[in-house]
Amino acid sequence: MSQPVAGRPAARAADAAAAATLPDPTFPIPWLPDGLDTPVLVVDLDVAEANTRRLVAHVAASAATLRPHAKTHKSLEIARGQLAGGVVGLTVGTLGEAEVFVGGGLDDLFVAYPVWAAGPKASRLRALHERAPRLRVGVDSPAGAEQLAAAVAGAADPLQVLVEVDPGNRRTGVATPEAAVGVARAAARAGLEVIGVFSHGGHGYAGPEARAIAAADEVRTLTAATEALRAAGFECPVVSAGSTPTMLAALGGPITEMRAGTYVLGDRQQSVLGSIDPGAVALHVAATVVSAAVDGQVVVDAGAKTLTKDVAPYLWGYGALPAYPWAVIERLSDYHGVVRIPPGSPAPALGEVVAIVPNHVCPVVDLFDSFVAVRGRRRVGTLPVDARGRRG
Amino acid sequence: MSQPVAGRPAARAADAAAAATLPDPTFPIPWLPDGLDTPVLVVDLDVAEANTRRLVAHVAASAATLRPHAKTHKSLEIARGQLAGGVVGLTVGTLGEAEVFVGGGLDDLFVAYPVWAAGPKASRLRALHERAPRLRVGVDSPAGAEQLAAAVAGAADPLQVLVEVDPGNRRTGVATPEAAVGVARAAARAGLEVIGVFSHGGHGYAGPEARAIAAADEVRTLTAATEALRAAGFECPVVSAGSTPTMLAALGGPITEMRAGTYVLGDRQQSVLGSIDPGAVALHVAATVVSAAVDGQVVVDAGAKTLTKDVAPYLWGYGALPAYPWAVIERLSDYHGVVRIPPGSPAPALGEVVAIVPNHVCPVVDLFDSFVAVRGRRRVGTLPVDARGRRG
Repeated sequence: MSQPVAGRPAARAADAAAAATLPDPTFPIPWLPDGLDTPVLVVDLDVAEANTRRLVAHVAASAATLRPHAKTHKSLEIARGQLAGGVVGLTVGTLGEAEVFVGGGLDDLFVAYPVWAAGPKASRLRALHERAPRLRVGVDSPAGAEQLAAAVAGAADPLQVLVEVDPGNRRTGVATPEAAVGVARAAARAGLEVIGVFSHGGHGYAGPEARAIAAADEVRTLTAATEALRAAGFECPVVSAGSTPTMLAALGGPITEMRAGTYVLGDRQQSVLGSIDPGAVALHVAATVVSAAVDGQVVVDAGAKTLTKDVAPYLWGYGALPAYPWAVIERLSDYHGVVRIPPGSPAPALGEVVAIVPNHVCPVVDLFDSFVAVRGRRRVGTLPVDARGRRG
Repeated sequence: MSQPVAGRPAARAADAAAAATLPDPTFPIPWLPDGLDTPVLVVDLDVAEANTRRLVAHVAASAATLRPHAKTHKSLEIARGQLAGGVVGLTVGTLGEAEVFVGGGLDDLFVAYPVWAAGPKASRLRALHERAPRLRVGVDSPAGAEQLAAAVAGAADPLQVLVEVDPGNRRTGVATPEAAVGVARAAARAGLEVIGVFSHGGHGYAGPEARAIAAADEVRTLTAATEALRAAGFECPVVSAGSTPTMLAALGGPITEMRAGTYVLGDRQQSVLGSIDPGAVALHVAATVVSAAVDGQVVVDAGAKTLTKDVAPYLWGYGALPAYPWAVIERLSDYHGVVRIPPGSPAPALGEVVAIVPNHVCPVVDLFDSFVAVRGRRRVGTLPVDARGRRG
């Protein structure tokens, strides 16, 4: 995996900093409209819609449904495109995201997060539940279940919850089927309606091989938890897996839905991991070269407040430039991206607008108020990032 | 620097991941108002105002003035507090920030950035210049100077520019005094008014020793550039240095102003570098513990979309918890912060609201629409982050 890549200049392959990195795939050079006020997000809606159609078909072949995580795009318009493409509803990560999507009429939502419903969040959850009774919430502790139940006490419908189980990601979710039954019983006792279990195979982000391992972990963990819940008298109609790295393989067994999110826009990380094809990248950051004063590099106007400092051990730098595959975005400050140009490889000119594939698209989108939308080589409008900043 | 810290559990000091890190100072535990809807920013305006008064006095002792970088706080109210505390004007990084501050009546601004004034930026710069003739812009290339001049051609007043020189940071800025004269001549020929030079000693972020080196580099580089410009017939009334790591030492010689920004809110990075006292941290992220399902850790609702993944080689993890100094914020996903709790050290309880000192405050603030403002142990209101998202 860390071997020099054929065709790459030796200077790059030999760089010690790259010892653990994986090669970038060949990203197609996207079309960008003229007159962009950089830095700006450009999303190709045709590519995004094709991504959804392809994943819906793949998931359907395993008799499951797609409930994509909308934290990636935070856009009502892109969400409507996903629903038109055959997804059954949306996943969100926060009550704030749920409020925006419910406000836009999209109310079949799962908040895949152990919401702690105290203080202001209790009244916000109560209002959401009354407005969107199908809204489901995650839970991974008896105490969390009791808070949720207290927040909705006296409502017309019971709040539906899914118990989170940990497939080895070590973030949230209970560790054993017995603990899942314990949380489910506490939830039922408190008056919540337990409708299933969910997991997130986030450890699949560790590398290409980890994807398959994490997917198998999700299937095994969800199977064991479902069996235990059913043995304890819970019907468990919803068994929900998901992440983009595990989306193609965490299917089968009792799994009824997949929650991948990043797949719709794609990014450098998913391409390098092999989760998506490099041609499936639907979002680029357009940036302008503002300085070439220092030898061996240029500076673009996309810095940490545009690309974020999201990195992974297998990614070198902070994004990829499809038109300049040897360039490395080596350092970021708030408004400067320092792009190293190895000797002998072409450099963008001062004033040139370049496209960048960000490492991780989700936090990048969350920085922007809008996308420039294109379809192929045509600009079709501007979309708001409706749920930007809704982090709680 | 990498020795175990007295009083720290051996498990932490021995951890290989910490081999290059520096110890956190002892951060005071801040007061947080009740009923916060986490994650949220809490800023103590008393602390921020004291930070400005102290730095203004320090800079004045070297016969210089303070023109703080407002990209840190992006707030009209905090900027007005800085002006009340004796700063002479503000620094910004983008035309978008300038538009917000000019809109708020704060028009003594320096855009410390090599603005490439083509396309939409040309008309925006023209409008800003007509509204705020004192607005100054950075330039580091003859081509950039020509673009600036073309954007304001025919305006009543000439646009004032400062030539950027590189003190060794290798980001932007010309490398030699001769090159600075070349850019100044090109600017003057194009009709711009060259009023001085500036530098940014960003290499002072590399570590505590680097601070003094970068400050000396700024003084030496600015002195040489000023002498060359004066010898070439440019009066050079403004000689501007600055970054928070170099703010106490990059003074003297011909330097007339200092542009530190982070100093006003403070953060973990500046405290560990020794640029600020840990008691000078004026901003905290308040977060809630939402999960304790996995042994040895808790999860808070501040993830990468709150704390950012900004790191430095000498910082371990993504922030510090003043009330839990042995805790390490080890992993972030969008809405989850995984906080490792070493065996035998205290852990926050499920549902507890904790204060976090972020690694780097500037990109954190840029994620939020508002701050909760306190003075001491009293909540005094909510301030908008007026220039949030103004990255271009």
